[in-house]
Amino acid sequence: MLCEAASQLAVPTLVLAERSDDAACPAASGFLTGHAHHAGALGELSERCAAVTFDHEQVDLELLSALEDAGHTVAPPPSALRFATDKAQMRQRLADAGLPVPTFTVLPEGPADPAVIEAFGTAHGWPLVLKAARGGYDGRGVWVTATLDEAMEVARRAEEVGTQLLLEPHVDIQAELAQLVVRAPSGEAACWPAVETVQVDGVCREVLFPGRLGAPVASEARQLGLAVAELTGVVGILAVELFATAEGLVVNELAMRPHNSGHWSIEGAVTSQFENHLRAVLGLPLGSTEPASPFVACVNVFGDQSGSDPRSRLAGALAVEGAHIHLYGKTARPGRKLGHVTVVGDDQVEVVETAWKAATALGTPRPPRP
Amino acid sequence: MLCEAASQLAVPTLVLAERSDDAACPAASGFLTGHAHHAGALGELSERCAAVTFDHEQVDLELLSALEDAGHTVAPPPSALRFATDKAQMRQRLADAGLPVPTFTVLPEGPADPAVIEAFGTAHGWPLVLKAARGGYDGRGVWVTATLDEAMEVARRAEEVGTQLLLEPHVDIQAELAQLVVRAPSGEAACWPAVETVQVDGVCREVLFPGRLGAPVASEARQLGLAVAELTGVVGILAVELFATAEGLVVNELAMRPHNSGHWSIEGAVTSQFENHLRAVLGLPLGSTEPASPFVACVNVFGDQSGSDPRSRLAGALAVEGAHIHLYGKTARPGRKLGHVTVVGDDQVEVVETAWKAATALGTPRPPRP
Repeated sequence: MLCEAASQLAVPTLVLAERSDDAACPAASGFLTGHAHHAGALGELSERCAAVTFDHEQVDLELLSALEDAGHTVAPPPSALRFATDKAQMRQRLADAGLPVPTFTVLPEGPADPAVIEAFGTAHGWPLVLKAARGGYDGRGVWVTATLDEAMEVARRAEEVGTQLLLEPHVDIQAELAQLVVRAPSGEAACWPAVETVQVDGVCREVLFPGRLGAPVASEARQLGLAVAELTGVVGILAVELFATAEGLVVNELAMRPHNSGHWSIEGAVTSQFENHLRAVLGLPLGSTEPASPFVACVNVFGDQSGSDPRSRLAGALAVEGAHIHLYGKTARPGRKLGHVTVVGDDQVEVVETAWKAATALGTPRPPRP
Repeated sequence: MLCEAASQLAVPTLVLAERSDDAACPAASGFLTGHAHHAGALGELSERCAAVTFDHEQVDLELLSALEDAGHTVAPPPSALRFATDKAQMRQRLADAGLPVPTFTVLPEGPADPAVIEAFGTAHGWPLVLKAARGGYDGRGVWVTATLDEAMEVARRAEEVGTQLLLEPHVDIQAELAQLVVRAPSGEAACWPAVETVQVDGVCREVLFPGRLGAPVASEARQLGLAVAELTGVVGILAVELFATAEGLVVNELAMRPHNSGHWSIEGAVTSQFENHLRAVLGLPLGSTEPASPFVACVNVFGDQSGSDPRSRLAGALAVEGAHIHLYGKTARPGRKLGHVTVVGDDQVEVVETAWKAATALGTPRPPRP
């Protein structure tokens, strides 16, 4: 989607992908095959491009710092990316800056001490949530544990694979939100309106503007987004995932790239997150982040259990009037995010219903709301 | 822009271009180099694609008919393209069907007979307009001649280069309009609202929705558009260029491809002409052609006399809030169409002013309105 935005402005794009059949390759002007952790591949990319940016966080900060030191434009800069690649560090630095984060502790490296977990559970109550500081393992990054035994089992497996863990109480969440910010190299920043993200089993299924968010919460989210952007020194898109709790908003996660919670902006805002990411990375003026419609619903499309490709059901989805279908061209796998549907309009219920109608046609039926 | 729309739906595109540095190549998933009049190149294209379509009218109808006969999907079909490639035939067939066209006559092939031109001028009044039935020559396709001598000079040169001419009286045009239609293989068709096209020296500078068009004229344009779509059997986009005269609307030109007069639909309508062209060509359901905003202005960007590239002035244009900049990545040449700017909004004057502000920043200042 970043390449599509670049094409509109006649900005050429060169993608570094591990395989030539990566879905990003046909969308870019050209591509290189190689690994983002290989100095050679990254070096060639940065030699051939005016700026290097990312669509995931699996980056090698030392390599990126070396590129930056050699005079290449790397955006977001590695100093900012540190916040997005390590949850433990991010939490600590936000807390140090006085920004609201959930109560947490980082388990020390080495074998987990049951007394530490027990004490945290006693202080904050069970169940406890364990989160991988980086990446995760067994395809997961979050575990909810009801007992000390369960928590110790997660901690042992994490130690085996070398994953550091955060410990959190189970927060009573009233709603999940995302605040999208774009920040220019000059420090100028702009916020899209905050959106509600509806998660089922830890997976974002719907993004709603304005959702159930009132103006005071949206304003609080905006202030937090700007504060995090300034603290981190991000260049490009910053997505701040927030929990609304009885005590107010807390920052759960950060992403420094165009983010799923901002896909609604393609049709729902004057400037999309992709175009503004590009503008920021290239040091061009930022575009308006105003909404283009009173209500927006964006619903994610996933691979179904049979592994069938939603592209085979495109006709049914295109028959849903007003649904903007985006498919990513990725190989279909059960549970893999393969696309999204956005609907804009004047009626809050209707935009959601229409988006789900199209998503259902693509093979992703609406789950019962938790 | 068609490739950008295809990318959004994960529909792969293969472009046949004469040169690998053609601006369409980086936007497509892949490209072939070759000439659209060569059976070999077209054959390879159609073997590798589910459907073949076009973004210009310089096509060889016999070659396309042969592809169709061999079972390939060619959209629009050659039987429809005949209307768009030969103005004389188009005029005659529309007139035969009772559709309104300007008064015209086709000059017989061979040396022009001054008596025929003189008689036409006497019957309909001078000046006379001469139009090339196909292509044109010396970079032009339309000549306004005040005297028989001038008309004979054009006719002699046309005969030299083998160009057939149409003769028309100079019509007193109140406004120029364009009606964009999309037609599916099933015959289902949908119309975007008609737009006013503001021409200066025969070149379209602005496209305005709704412009100065009242509802009755827009409705008449819509009926005409649907009638022409049905008559021609087009599949994909049909752009009908119309003159508003004291006697009502007359059809001036047809194009059977996404057309400059429809670029406003990218931001200004629920479904863009590009996505709907793709949908029609692939036999997918058509998308809504409803406007997405009360007012839309689309202003074309041209190469300036110095030959400088508008891309070098991108920052200035992006600083104009609310302006959607589209650059085509074509090599800059004086007078060449290199991009466009679209602005949508609630204020008719403001959308036009904002679009011109951005176009001016790109090096295309607003001309005095004729």
